[in-house]
Amino acid sequence: MNPKTSQKANILVLNGPNLNLLGTREPGIYGAETLSDIQQQLELLAQQHSLTLSCFQSNNEAELIDAVHAARGTVDYIIINAAAYSHTSIALRDALTAVAIPFYEVHISNIYRRESFRHHSYLADAAEATLSGFGSYGYSLALLAIIKQLQS
Amino acid sequence: MNPKTSQKANILVLNGPNLNLLGTREPGIYGAETLSDIQQQLELLAQQHSLTLSCFQSNNEAELIDAVHAARGTVDYIIINAAAYSHTSIALRDALTAVAIPFYEVHISNIYRRESFRHHSYLADAAEATLSGFGSYGYSLALLAIIKQLQS
Amino acid sequence: MNPKTSQKANILVLNGPNLNLLGTREPGIYGAETLSDIQQQLELLAQQHSLTLSCFQSNNEAELIDAVHAARGTVDYIIINAAAYSHTSIALRDALTAVAIPFYEVHISNIYRRESFRHHSYLADAAEATLSGFGSYGYSLALLAIIKQLQS
Amino acid sequence: MNPKTSQKANILVLNGPNLNLLGTREPGIYGAETLSDIQQQLELLAQQHSLTLSCFQSNNEAELIDAVHAARGTVDYIIINAAAYSHTSIALRDALTAVAIPFYEVHISNIYRRESFRHHSYLADAAEATLSGFGSYGYSLALLAIIKQLQS
Amino acid sequence: MNPKTSQKANILVLNGPNLNLLGTREPGIYGAETLSDIQQQLELLAQQHSLTLSCFQSNNEAELIDAVHAARGTVDYIIINAAAYSHTSIALRDALTAVAIPFYEVHISNIYRRESFRHHSYLADAAEATLSGFGSYGYSLALLAIIKQLQS
Amino acid sequence: MNPKTSQKANILVLNGPNLNLLGTREPGIYGAETLSDIQQQLELLAQQHSLTLSCFQSNNEAELIDAVHAARGTVDYIIINAAAYSHTSIALRDALTAVAIPFYEVHISNIYRRESFRHHSYLADAAEATLSGFGSYGYSLALLAIIKQLQS
Amino acid sequence: MNPKTSQKANILVLNGPNLNLLGTREPGIYGAETLSDIQQQLELLAQQHSLTLSCFQSNNEAELIDAVHAARGTVDYIIINAAAYSHTSIALRDALTAVAIPFYEVHISNIYRRESFRHHSYLADAAEATLSGFGSYGYSLALLAIIKQLQS
Amino acid sequence: MNPKTSQKANILVLNGPNLNLLGTREPGIYGAETLSDIQQQLELLAQQHSLTLSCFQSNNEAELIDAVHAARGTVDYIIINAAAYSHTSIALRDALTAVAIPFYEVHISNIYRRESFRHHSYLADAAEATLSGFGSYGYSLALLAIIKQLQS
Amino acid sequence: MNPKTSQKANILVLNGPNLNLLGTREPGIYGAETLSDIQQQLELLAQQHSLTLSCFQSNNEAELIDAVHAARGTVDYIIINAAAYSHTSIALRDALTAVAIPFYEVHISNIYRRESFRHHSYLADAAEATLSGFGSYGYSLALLAIIKQLQS
Amino acid sequence: MNPKTSQKANILVLNGPNLNLLGTREPGIYGAETLSDIQQQLELLAQQHSLTLSCFQSNNEAELIDAVHAARGTVDYIIINAAAYSHTSIALRDALTAVAIPFYEVHISNIYRRESFRHHSYLADAAEATLSGFGSYGYSLALLAIIKQLQS
Amino acid sequence: MNPKTSQKANILVLNGPNLNLLGTREPGIYGAETLSDIQQQLELLAQQHSLTLSCFQSNNEAELIDAVHAARGTVDYIIINAAAYSHTSIALRDALTAVAIPFYEVHISNIYRRESFRHHSYLADAAEATLSGFGSYGYSLALLAIIKQLQS
Amino acid sequence: MNPKTSQKANILVLNGPNLNLLGTREPGIYGAETLSDIQQQLELLAQQHSLTLSCFQSNNEAELIDAVHAARGTVDYIIINAAAYSHTSIALRDALTAVAIPFYEVHISNIYRRESFRHHSYLADAAEATLSGFGSYGYSLALLAIIKQLQS
Repeated sequence: MNPKTSQKANILVLNGPNLNLLGTREPGIYGAETLSDIQQQLELLAQQHSLTLSCFQSNNEAELIDAVHAARGTVDYIIINAAAYSHTSIALRDALTAVAIPFYEVHISNIYRRESFRHHSYLADAAEATLSGFGSYGYSLALLAIIKQLQS
Repeated sequence: MNPKTSQKANILVLNGPNLNLLGTREPGIYGAETLSDIQQQLELLAQQHSLTLSCFQSNNEAELIDAVHAARGTVDYIIINAAAYSHTSIALRDALTAVAIPFYEVHISNIYRRESFRHHSYLADAAEATLSGFGSYGYSLALLAIIKQLQS
Repeated sequence: MNPKTSQKANILVLNGPNLNLLGTREPGIYGAETLSDIQQQLELLAQQHSLTLSCFQSNNEAELIDAVHAARGTVDYIIINAAAYSHTSIALRDALTAVAIPFYEVHISNIYRRESFRHHSYLADAAEATLSGFGSYGYSLALLAIIKQLQS
Repeated sequence: MNPKTSQKANILVLNGPNLNLLGTREPGIYGAETLSDIQQQLELLAQQHSLTLSCFQSNNEAELIDAVHAARGTVDYIIINAAAYSHTSIALRDALTAVAIPFYEVHISNIYRRESFRHHSYLADAAEATLSGFGSYGYSLALLAIIKQLQS
Repeated sequence: MNPKTSQKANILVLNGPNLNLLGTREPGIYGAETLSDIQQQLELLAQQHSLTLSCFQSNNEAELIDAVHAARGTVDYIIINAAAYSHTSIALRDALTAVAIPFYEVHISNIYRRESFRHHSYLADAAEATLSGFGSYGYSLALLAIIKQLQS
Repeated sequence: MNPKTSQKANILVLNGPNLNLLGTREPGIYGAETLSDIQQQLELLAQQHSLTLSCFQSNNEAELIDAVHAARGTVDYIIINAAAYSHTSIALRDALTAVAIPFYEVHISNIYRRESFRHHSYLADAAEATLSGFGSYGYSLALLAIIKQLQS
Repeated sequence: MNPKTSQKANILVLNGPNLNLLGTREPGIYGAETLSDIQQQLELLAQQHSLTLSCFQSNNEAELIDAVHAARGTVDYIIINAAAYSHTSIALRDALTAVAIPFYEVHISNIYRRESFRHHSYLADAAEATLSGFGSYGYSLALLAIIKQLQS
Repeated sequence: MNPKTSQKANILVLNGPNLNLLGTREPGIYGAETLSDIQQQLELLAQQHSLTLSCFQSNNEAELIDAVHAARGTVDYIIINAAAYSHTSIALRDALTAVAIPFYEVHISNIYRRESFRHHSYLADAAEATLSGFGSYGYSLALLAIIKQLQS
Repeated sequence: MNPKTSQKANILVLNGPNLNLLGTREPGIYGAETLSDIQQQLELLAQQHSLTLSCFQSNNEAELIDAVHAARGTVDYIIINAAAYSHTSIALRDALTAVAIPFYEVHISNIYRRESFRHHSYLADAAEATLSGFGSYGYSLALLAIIKQLQS
Repeated sequence: MNPKTSQKANILVLNGPNLNLLGTREPGIYGAETLSDIQQQLELLAQQHSLTLSCFQSNNEAELIDAVHAARGTVDYIIINAAAYSHTSIALRDALTAVAIPFYEVHISNIYRRESFRHHSYLADAAEATLSGFGSYGYSLALLAIIKQLQS
Repeated sequence: MNPKTSQKANILVLNGPNLNLLGTREPGIYGAETLSDIQQQLELLAQQHSLTLSCFQSNNEAELIDAVHAARGTVDYIIINAAAYSHTSIALRDALTAVAIPFYEVHISNIYRRESFRHHSYLADAAEATLSGFGSYGYSLALLAIIKQLQS
Repeated sequence: MNPKTSQKANILVLNGPNLNLLGTREPGIYGAETLSDIQQQLELLAQQHSLTLSCFQSNNEAELIDAVHAARGTVDYIIINAAAYSHTSIALRDALTAVAIPFYEVHISNIYRRESFRHHSYLADAAEATLSGFGSYGYSLALLAIIKQLQS
């Protein structure tokens, strides 16, 4: 893992296409919490550990790339759920490796229980780590891993 | 097929990348009608059956996704020609399945006569039905299928 | 599309194996209408547009081939639902391309929602156009496309 | 397995292409018994358990399909050795699933010891059960399984 | 090659689906000679070498299988152009290997210049020899090979 | 099949991993009978035909291999349900072919209705015969085949 | 996720082959902590949340299967790092699905950065969730997910 | 190559996602020059040959498509480094073939030394020519080829 | 076929690697005739039809290419048995298509009965026609086809 | 190769499943020598070069893994014939790479002449060197290579 | 790129099989210039930049390998158009990497517009850079890249 | 193995392309010994066992084939390191099987640690035995195997 630490580390949480619908879209798969609920939980957890955390969602691949570029120099860790772009966007992968910010990949549902085209992620081998199937709590787990990382 | 019907059903016609060039781009493949011509024909047909129909074209995957999201709650059926995004966009597929509006997939040319990378569509199995090769009249056929569906 | 038109064009509707069971076989997939019901609707539609339309169903690949051969010189358009033979019969494809009658491929169910061996059709790239998932109304849509073609 | 039972259950034994040559064709692979010998044994076994059993062989895919169709409403179980059509006929599979009669798949030789194109059967996953390599006694084993099924 | 020879050897020429259309179907690919023309030439050549030669064409896979079965015991060599069935019929292959009559595979056009699904033949490795692309003269070449075989 | 017979032939029934859970594990797939129930039925059937029959189950691939080795010289036929090891164990296949005891492969469920990784068995082409989907009665069918074999 | 909860839930942590070498084996990949260190951390975390937690490591696939079987009726959740068996053991997968205890899959290293044969896991789609690349802290994350699950 | 020439030909240089980071992103792979440096060099070279040259970079697939559309009628040649979109964007390919402007594909790094998913480009067979691995000088080479083309 | 004819047409017979061993190498596969025997037969046949025929064998891919180049302008037809180079030499294919001399491909043994790497030929789709399995008589058949071609 | 040498180097010879049957199992493939014979020869050769050599065979994957683990710190080189586990055991590979003892892979028979599933070994790229087909003498060759290595 | 520079650098231009026919072979694909024309242009360009340049063409893979070997120690850069050997010759690749002279790969035609077997090159990932489709001017472009490289 | 033995057996050592560079080419992979060094060692070893041994290296596929042909009748065993031709030359394989001299395949480096295109050898299944990764000592090991073979 990346040795970059900070007294008040800066975390960026990125969410990709269709995640703005969380809580209303196929709740059997994605749960009933909205993206706003999840972001509040993450902010609370960040506050408890004196971290700065900001969130961004877009359905637009280019806006996600731009957000990654903008993070260079200010963000210490990225937590990303790229949703469908995980499986199709080499451009987003390139953005993440270009800025060289360590990042963690999160999928709410267990992608291995779904269509075979969701089993491959262009981000997985570039990520520090990847998790899938923990529901919306997966974001918190990734944040806990960063906190752990900062403490060690 | 979807049981949702309405006295005055609402139809959204979505067109994907490069379809703004219709009538001027490779007329040997796509015919001489412009997208505007096609939309006028569809509006006329909709009027004749007392349907509301609106059209949207974008070269931007995210704008198409946003248009699908915006359709939730107001649109009863979608007719979509996602063009090249049919073959590459899982995000658009996810948008369509997330809003759970029944949709019909249209391709102007016969995609099976073209390059092999056009033979697979990420939308096809999520669509109610799919058609390919009927020229610009394919949109009308899809609309006729919706009209039939509303009548039954 | 084929330029061959006629004052009173002649249409042949071909149905392949097991379609004689329509209405009784897996109605959840294929609907409740019988093949006879469908043919009556097509004949009515043909009459309304002053077309001659005849129907033939066989479970026998060779009889379908013979019917295609016999159509040469008398039939202007073929509408064909080759059912299982779509996926296995190069001989039927060869018959259709040999007689050079423009043909439209129809599948009642959405073949992309079913087993992967139904996703490929030996007829698709030889057909003028192909549609799938419109239920029994798909035949009518194909006929409407021919009517449109004759009018233009 | 199918719950349909009867006091005097009706069994249909279907044999596919080239099985009329049994006993004379490659006896090293298929054994020296003729199809007639096998049918007599099966009839005897059926009689002993008060079952009605009839046999049909054809080299013609369509005649086999027709025989399956005709079985609807009168036959309780089918034992089928579709021979080469096992590996190529989606139409025969469709016929069997359309009539929804439980069926058992029999291969005289061990198909996994032969050419790789014989390792896949379009019937296997639609069958109640499948056996291969038991020689002509395989038919009797399938019949015994039906008898067992009727007794339980 | 097969050692079976005879003072007056018996040759069977089998033609598969759509070959009844020869001379009229896509002459650019298949030439302008009819099947009847070809058969006359073969008969003449056979007469010149004191061979008995009979011809059979069918669009029906089962009739071709039956013809192969019927040849057992009377026919010394088979020349077969199975057309589309070359690529799909394991049953026809099984018939030919079951009767154990040496056979020669003929294709009028060069199948390697055509669609990739025509590049594989289920008959090729079971045949004595195979030829492709010699036009209608390919049948004569196969017959000359048999004559040569009988002379040696 | 193997010519080795004996006045009192010796049968070994081998069961692989997780089959100790039979009757409790996913009864919808595997049925309600325990492995002990099945073994009693087999012993009874063996007694009726004056055969010696012993059973062994292990979750341990090596113990199954050792059991196969130990069978050399004393066992005449093996009936084996290798369960998950059917799909992964070349070592077990090697053990079976090394001792050269004819064996029959049994699967309780129809493996062709399950995940694609269960469709291939490393034992199938080395077995005398293989059956799948007959429920727990499949073991009895394999034993009946051995009895038949001993009688002929 | 599984609804089974308990006032004092019981957690089993399973570790597969070669994990006994943790801390000494390729520390660049697996870190410097021993398995004992990890287990102590997990036990502490479990105590803090009033859970019972036990650990088991084996290089023996069968012992892992037996441990899963033994867990039935007493264990509420399993955390498993099956190491190399993740990629080859259908038997371990079957054991886990047979006892129907919800389980979480952990990989210390990011398996997508390693050899391609480590990218597929037979456990992933059967697991509640899966994580990879979080180092030894991944076990704690999985345990936190269970705690979260028990609290909701 | 395209015969279209002009006294003062118009060249458009398009750069795709993440190329705005050139000079700062992974200089070991992409070199130390910025995109601005490269564009200045190209402009200078264009001036020397009395060509008009304009440059456009975007991380947004749709903006690139729009730029291609806008070029119709005014631009004579396109030089494009589509970066990651080379490997995923059929829509961009369609835009380029739709406007029928001859284009040259440039990759700064040698894409064949990198991940296998970068070895295929959707643009390559539609381009006049393609080059890869010449560093930032590759753009100049493509421009020199156009100049050569205009001179001949 | 190629329209080039001549009063005294010139034929080149090319033989590839290891064919100098004919008659001594694996006679079970290739027959007992030497290459010299075959060439004498071909020369005799050519003389009878007033053709000029020359033969060349080499184990050297480049010498075969050079021989093809040298044939340009003087040779009307090539008969080639490229042996192992059929399966590996794109350079030889390129030579043959570059000189644009119609050529016939001959294989002595039936390549479809041999290793799978012999089933594909880089020459087959570029050849006028191809034959395989006719023994050394295959060369004569190819020559007869050329003679026939010249006569028509 | 590994620089670790010793005045009295320590060699471990590991043999995998079914090799206990050597000399009795398929002697046509594996030769007539028993494993004990081979080990005596190796011990003699070791003695002659003042090496310590010990042998271990197991049909149990886990015992082989344990033996590899136990070798750490005491064994300088491993010679391993993992037999069937070569083709399926990632766990054994992991054990060997984890202890970082240089090892040589031996196969008695030529694995490339056997079933295709034996052509891939999970050990081959992790081994110093690999040999196949030298019969039981292959072990001696591997030992000679180690001796050579120690001398240089 | 390679740091080796020289006051008077030495360039070797290698051309592979059939390129001696340039200007006469398929001019629609390869243009009308002869290889001699191209070499004169390259020599002129080299002279202008005070470089030594020599050219070699062979249809013989071994002569090309020998030329590469001979270049060691005297040649600074190689420009190679290996033609068909690009797609088949690992030996030529090995020669180039063995002498460790930086080389540039040139293809006259756009290989991605041609047969799929021309899309892969064994040289591409070993080359400094690769270009395809620039006609005979591609050689000059490669030379210009070397000149640029020498100047920087 | 081949039973041919002789009082003074004759061994031919063949080396393929680029092996003339041994000792200078990539010594990290191939070691520092020259081919001449290796040949001297082999000659010494041969002398010690009263064998005749000759060596031949060529970069030319055809010269290697010719050397194999010339060996017929005089050479008893061949040791061959065909280098790159191992992976591409069916012609060399054919030469070796045609002369029916038993041969041993040697690779200096471990080919399984290198590019995937080096993992397959056209010689491996035709060879008596094959070894890879033993450095230049691998030749000696092969010679020792022949000596052992001659002694037994």
